[in-house]
Amino acid sequence: MVTLGSEVVSGDRRVTVIAGGVGAAKFLRGLLYFHPNDSVTALVNVADDFHLHGLSISPDLDTVTYTLGGLVNPETGWGRAEETWRVRQELARLGGETWFNLGDLDLALHLYRTQRLSNGATLTEVTKEISTKLGIEARLLPASDQQIRTQLKVQDQGWVDFQNYFVAQQHDVAIEALRFEGIEQALPGPEVITSLREADIIIIAPSNPFVSVMPVLEITGISETVKERKDDVIAVSPIVGGAALKGPASRMLQELGFESSVVGIASLYRELAGALVIDHLDSGLSSKVESEGLRPVITDTIMSDPKRAAALAKAVLEEI
Amino acid sequence: MVTLGSEVVSGDRRVTVIAGGVGAAKFLRGLLYFHPNDSVTALVNVADDFHLHGLSISPDLDTVTYTLGGLVNPETGWGRAEETWRVRQELARLGGETWFNLGDLDLALHLYRTQRLSNGATLTEVTKEISTKLGIEARLLPASDQQIRTQLKVQDQGWVDFQNYFVAQQHDVAIEALRFEGIEQALPGPEVITSLREADIIIIAPSNPFVSVMPVLEITGISETVKERKDDVIAVSPIVGGAALKGPASRMLQELGFESSVVGIASLYRELAGALVIDHLDSGLSSKVESEGLRPVITDTIMSDPKRAAALAKAVLEEI
Repeated sequence: MVTLGSEVVSGDRRVTVIAGGVGAAKFLRGLLYFHPNDSVTALVNVADDFHLHGLSISPDLDTVTYTLGGLVNPETGWGRAEETWRVRQELARLGGETWFNLGDLDLALHLYRTQRLSNGATLTEVTKEISTKLGIEARLLPASDQQIRTQLKVQDQGWVDFQNYFVAQQHDVAIEALRFEGIEQALPGPEVITSLREADIIIIAPSNPFVSVMPVLEITGISETVKERKDDVIAVSPIVGGAALKGPASRMLQELGFESSVVGIASLYRELAGALVIDHLDSGLSSKVESEGLRPVITDTIMSDPKRAAALAKAVLEEI
Repeated sequence: MVTLGSEVVSGDRRVTVIAGGVGAAKFLRGLLYFHPNDSVTALVNVADDFHLHGLSISPDLDTVTYTLGGLVNPETGWGRAEETWRVRQELARLGGETWFNLGDLDLALHLYRTQRLSNGATLTEVTKEISTKLGIEARLLPASDQQIRTQLKVQDQGWVDFQNYFVAQQHDVAIEALRFEGIEQALPGPEVITSLREADIIIIAPSNPFVSVMPVLEITGISETVKERKDDVIAVSPIVGGAALKGPASRMLQELGFESSVVGIASLYRELAGALVIDHLDSGLSSKVESEGLRPVITDTIMSDPKRAAALAKAVLEEI
């Protein structure tokens, strides 16, 4: 990766990654295998955050944190490895709400975060404390310290909260629209805009464009800053062969009127990114991606193990 | 117990017990061994309640609930039997606050309560739900659905919250005064006054008079109602042989200017109760109790096992 003698040494470049949950976490872990960790910033979506049992839960931040801290459940890509369910079992016995799985180890993080927030710490500060404790050297920044809540208009149900749609209903329902409650009032986290301005490369991770990337970009000032940096912005498609590897991205594209392919992704990111990384499987669509104004970059994008994630991250850095 | 042919059949009498934590819970369990459970109401102190990690924790209600539900840790008299500490261990690793021991099973109850309160349920309603779930037939009533917070003026420290004094500092400091924040605004729980009016017997449990009983009595209307029923009110001394069996009652009596004996207890309850149950150990003080205006009832008051607690409760019912 390090091209000695060239003007820019890849190994030193500052990279900012706009991130959702599992896909972004895998990509980041791949990137951190070879890139100096203190040159990497993740701007993490907070619009999935919610309160349950009085606790402040930040699913995307947690997934990124657990993955980069080496604690993630390798089977699921989220939650903790070697998790136990003692509290949940007892909560079920009491007739409590158990639709959102809270493991014992996972709970400890929510208790910590909630206590620190109630002490007056910001989400940015708490995230930093946890990262430090877990030995994560990359900088994790919540996109905002304010509350933003993704809601989806579900057929025959009206507006529902994200976790209801995603977890309770297993995203197995058709949506008609989405909105981000509170986003007009939300400010970017204190280091967010600077991290975008100072980055040598901005990567939009292979996350759901609607519910992971958009609620970061639509925070005041963020998409404007990204657009100014368009030539240094590269997106990685979360859609491979017309399907999402995880989650509802593919059907959301359809339901919201986009082509359910890398071309749909390209049309969403046309004003934001200079290039779109697509899988070999989708190489036949590269000219269509180009028509949307993005330079197609063809590589293996399926992060079936950490090594492949690292290879993908390397390929992305080499392209910009 | 059942005195057939007498005007009042003991077995049918409605009993309301003003209750704190461990002592009251043991007494209530004793009472429920032989008395019809649906004739028993416990008015439980809520001024120890507090928030930690975003959770609503009600230590006295929990102790009574666990004891009557057959779930209590028999070693401590509070918390759950067969408790595990997986969440706490992880929370410690993250650098979280662990001065208040939250076991995994115990946490489930706090999660349940907090969620139901955030759904708009009252503490009275949540307490009823939990009691029903655990098969408790006695009626447990929080003294109030509003927030009351015991604070203690600690020498050289100023005002501190109850749990700080009681748990974090192990009540190993001298106090100068106490107050119940919010008590002027607090209303008795919806069934509280009626339960006192309709009771055939009102028992003040062997709980700490200052931090368990007073913050119940000082809620608007409660001490007035108890005073009207004075002849039907019997208190059980939490002080035996000049010492409290558990907790800081004895040193609090001293520090707040009372005699640290059953006589001090009598002087505190002189306007509230017609009789005071004291231990054989304190029989030498019975005339002094009488001078305070309370009829002394001498029996074994040390509830070293459930059978002795039942015997004490029987002795109390027989006296009034």
